Amino acid sequence: MLWTDGRYFLQAAQQLDPTCWTLMKDRLPETPSIEEWLANNIDAGKQVGFDPYLISLSEFKRINSKLEKKKVGFVPVLGNLVDQIWPEAKTEEEVKAALKGEGDLEHGRPPLPRTPIFVQPIEFAGESVSSKLTKLRQAMAADNIYATIVCALDEVAWLYNLRGRDVPYNPVFMSYAIVTQDSATLYVLPEKVSDEVAQHLKEAKVNVRHYDSILEDAAAVGQKVKELSTSEKPLFIWADPAKTNFAVTNALNLDDSYRAQSTPPIAMSKAVKNDAELQGMRECHVRDGVAVCKFFTWLESQLSKLPSAHTSKEEDIAASPLTEYSVTDVLRNFRAEQDKFVDLSFSTISSIGANGAVIHYSPSPTSSKPIVTGKIFLLDSGGQYRDGTTDITRTIFLARPGAQADDGKENEETDAHPSAFQKECFTRVLKGHIALARQIFPKTCTGPALDALARHALWNVGLDYLHGTGHGVGSFLAVHEGPQGIAPNRGPLNGVTLKPGMILSNEPGYYHDGEFGIRIENLVYVTRKATPYQFNKQEFYGFENLTVVPIDRRLIQRDLLTSEEIDYINGYHAQCRAALLPRLKDDEATSQWVIRNTEPL
Amino acid sequence: MLWTDGRYFLQAAQQLDPTCWTLMKDRLPETPSIEEWLANNIDAGKQVGFDPYLISLSEFKRINSKLEKKKVGFVPVLGNLVDQIWPEAKTEEEVKAALKGEGDLEHGRPPLPRTPIFVQPIEFAGESVSSKLTKLRQAMAADNIYATIVCALDEVAWLYNLRGRDVPYNPVFMSYAIVTQDSATLYVLPEKVSDEVAQHLKEAKVNVRHYDSILEDAAAVGQKVKELSTSEKPLFIWADPAKTNFAVTNALNLDDSYRAQSTPPIAMSKAVKNDAELQGMRECHVRDGVAVCKFFTWLESQLSKLPSAHTSKEEDIAASPLTEYSVTDVLRNFRAEQDKFVDLSFSTISSIGANGAVIHYSPSPTSSKPIVTGKIFLLDSGGQYRDGTTDITRTIFLARPGAQADDGKENEETDAHPSAFQKECFTRVLKGHIALARQIFPKTCTGPALDALARHALWNVGLDYLHGTGHGVGSFLAVHEGPQGIAPNRGPLNGVTLKPGMILSNEPGYYHDGEFGIRIENLVYVTRKATPYQFNKQEFYGFENLTVVPIDRRLIQRDLLTSEEIDYINGYHAQCRAALLPRLKDDEATSQWVIRNTEPL
Repeated sequence: MLWTDGRYFLQAAQQLDPTCWTLMKDRLPETPSIEEWLANNIDAGKQVGFDPYLISLSEFKRINSKLEKKKVGFVPVLGNLVDQIWPEAKTEEEVKAALKGEGDLEHGRPPLPRTPIFVQPIEFAGESVSSKLTKLRQAMAADNIYATIVCALDEVAWLYNLRGRDVPYNPVFMSYAIVTQDSATLYVLPEKVSDEVAQHLKEAKVNVRHYDSILEDAAAVGQKVKELSTSEKPLFIWADPAKTNFAVTNALNLDDSYRAQSTPPIAMSKAVKNDAELQGMRECHVRDGVAVCKFFTWLESQLSKLPSAHTSKEEDIAASPLTEYSVTDVLRNFRAEQDKFVDLSFSTISSIGANGAVIHYSPSPTSSKPIVTGKIFLLDSGGQYRDGTTDITRTIFLARPGAQADDGKENEETDAHPSAFQKECFTRVLKGHIALARQIFPKTCTGPALDALARHALWNVGLDYLHGTGHGVGSFLAVHEGPQGIAPNRGPLNGVTLKPGMILSNEPGYYHDGEFGIRIENLVYVTRKATPYQFNKQEFYGFENLTVVPIDRRLIQRDLLTSEEIDYINGYHAQCRAALLPRLKDDEATSQWVIRNTEPL
Repeated sequence: MLWTDGRYFLQAAQQLDPTCWTLMKDRLPETPSIEEWLANNIDAGKQVGFDPYLISLSEFKRINSKLEKKKVGFVPVLGNLVDQIWPEAKTEEEVKAALKGEGDLEHGRPPLPRTPIFVQPIEFAGESVSSKLTKLRQAMAADNIYATIVCALDEVAWLYNLRGRDVPYNPVFMSYAIVTQDSATLYVLPEKVSDEVAQHLKEAKVNVRHYDSILEDAAAVGQKVKELSTSEKPLFIWADPAKTNFAVTNALNLDDSYRAQSTPPIAMSKAVKNDAELQGMRECHVRDGVAVCKFFTWLESQLSKLPSAHTSKEEDIAASPLTEYSVTDVLRNFRAEQDKFVDLSFSTISSIGANGAVIHYSPSPTSSKPIVTGKIFLLDSGGQYRDGTTDITRTIFLARPGAQADDGKENEETDAHPSAFQKECFTRVLKGHIALARQIFPKTCTGPALDALARHALWNVGLDYLHGTGHGVGSFLAVHEGPQGIAPNRGPLNGVTLKPGMILSNEPGYYHDGEFGIRIENLVYVTRKATPYQFNKQEFYGFENLTVVPIDRRLIQRDLLTSEEIDYINGYHAQCRAALLPRLKDDEATSQWVIRNTEPL
């Protein structure tokens, strides 16, 4: 059985072989959670095994508390079962055969990556490792924390101003960290540490230990806390239960009274970007915008060569010179031309027509639809640059050049225009996007409190989308990071107020199964806003856009917008022009495309 | 020290003698909670006492977990200390003297009220006691619940279709209830049970036991659960930890493993009104609207006799024929003339000018400001009727009849008009009120998710209000009831989705300390809404207004409203006219007032 949430319902249904898999649509009222299903289906006295490196302490507690009641055991099992059947097969057919137990393949997961770590220079990090450690240790002293254990890879990378290439799209590296008042340690495979990195760590007085030493050292830390803690001065551990795997938790061997009530501050410190990080984010978003606009300009130039979704024969459509997948290569090349480019920040979502409704659809070289005119095209992509991380979604209509609108066909999708319903949906998504972008809010406000603003115009006609509205984004780090987020009321986000310097996506959408998908996504940062009044002498905050790429005006139903909303779009498009045109002096075609697409509504 | 929240900051500061009291402004970031303060200020080894009848199990756990860590005891103390110094004094001076330990007063809290209980007939209750008990027992059987313990007075009243007069404004009576599969018991002083009530209870097979037997019977229930619970069929108790006092919890003497994980369903069943209750609520709101409109018509007729806030001498103002308090008597009389009137539903908030900023201000006969023209008047009031409960706030401007607007004085409050700032504030509060009233939302939506809609227009200029936007309301029961509510993200509300039949208030406000207060409050009910589309085949809900009293058009800055907002007001005023005029055929003055105040904007 595979549990997954609304973002992946369609994709999972397409990719899972129904003869051996059951899709469990998580978070729907009728779907039992993993722990509910286990509690109801495993007999008392039996045991459920789990990989202790893949289950956090929080997850363990949540599942175990349900199973305990039914007298079902929940026990860590070393040697992941999936690792053991992992086939070294090369082709899809061989993998399939291996999974069915057929074929004669060797098994075994590939070893840990040995790719080198590199330094994130102070110019982009904005704060030295020593300064980060000093602040962390001050916070630890205030809360009687003996040690901070860091398991989240992006937190280790942020803390030590290091980056790596171990995880696709995420510039992190396999590691752990432990910080006490008199030591800071990085756990990593020794061959990943170059001389430059060793020197950088030495300057910040950070020790390097072998990756495999983490359990031994965690056990020592746990022992030390018990020895040193007294009733006058009880000592605690910071190890975020949601991010610390059960193997490390087990090694610590401490009961809950040694866990601090307070939250370890690393995730929050990382989320609130400093001036250098914000400057880098603004700067890389302009370069990224240039790349995306060059791509759209190129794509527009290809449209006359493409078959039509409405008038071409099936075989002509199949022979389209462009596919969802092939255009992602072109887009990648435009990004790769930009200064400070490192990698994409996630697998590009390039989807035409019905594939747009598969929220996290990612085309592959072997399975990708031809690009045709007369369809909606959704493109969600991003880049990793040395000075920041981008994530943008634009939904455009691929109008056939010269196609004429037929009278009375406004309700239909044609080569000339989207259907009236598609325009209504796009405009309502846009109204939500704008409502969130423009909203001022007090410093006590959380992300979930704002989520309904992004949905209000969809809800009013009975539409909605089954994903959150915004996620945090790292600075040349993970494209999804916490603790902040904008989503319908859900546990962990409810306590997190939005703070100046946080970066979030603003990405409402609408997905019509089997027909089309719409999403409009900008990255924004939280900043102080001057307001005419200031109730209770409280600070008020709002958002500023980082992303600078025009929004497709052909999909807008203008009479659904208020004059304030039209002003917003025109203002945003003016911001795009001002940022992009100076970088496009040697590219007349893209300059013209930007100018055309930023004309006032 | 007294902890209270934003609704009472100003009032507490006015009423507490600073020589012996410290006001702790709860929920401000700089204010420690009660348990934080105790943990930081009481030495290890000491004990903090509490009255076990006044602290719920949840509160006990929250406070005790903090104190435990500091080795401070938290112990129930029988014999409430305040009861012991409760003076039987009659005058305010005597009370003050008694509190200072002066004077020669006898002490002792008055005994429990002996006022009779009465039956809430099926015509208004809409469901028999037998039916409610059957449903409760079905739910209990499904969750292996041995007994349900009910401590909340409104839940006892709802379950047994009884009402009383023991608590001012709340038609409840001092009682407990215990329900098992084969017994249902009401704990109450025997002299409160009339023959009619006895017969009503007998028909529903409900036993009556003495109020004081609750601890003994709770102990017996606790014992029984332990005896009957087996590992094959574990048994549990339903006793809402937030509503069960520590004395009853203590008597049960059960550890947490006997507490059901599920929530007792009584509060939710009570919150979702049946058709008869909704019909009664609609009906009593029209009668209540008639009373409020008669009051406003009468008040308008008095304005020429009143002094002016801007031109009258101080002694003339002091001699005003009307005070904040005296007008509440007039309003009460208009309500009392209405069919099925029982009582007010809370102490009327009648406040002029600066008193309007004291959110829960309640004028008293001895301390009440004179009513003058040229000021904003805020009136928050409600009635208890046999068929329902009302709660309405209207904020009006008391214009002096015939007063002329002076050119260039738009920014000032005069006898002719409110200031431009006051109009802006009122209009932004109104925009929030309308945004919430008009919003459609999916069935998964909670109250907190909608709260920002009511604040968005205030936030955008740096304004806000320090109270929730909506509370649940009972059906001839408490004017505040859970579990639903609309408020900034807060724990308990986050899990409660809004369901058809729930009643809520919609009451954004704005309070300018020392100057004026604004609140616009209607009661609404949640109902299914037909939408043009229906995403995911999901039901969509929205609100319908119950309250039918015009909103003061003189306080509206029309150009701040969108055309949809103007349409909403005009539609709402048409609804008021249609509901009220047929009931005002013998009252020409009020009819004319309604017609004037419901003219389209």
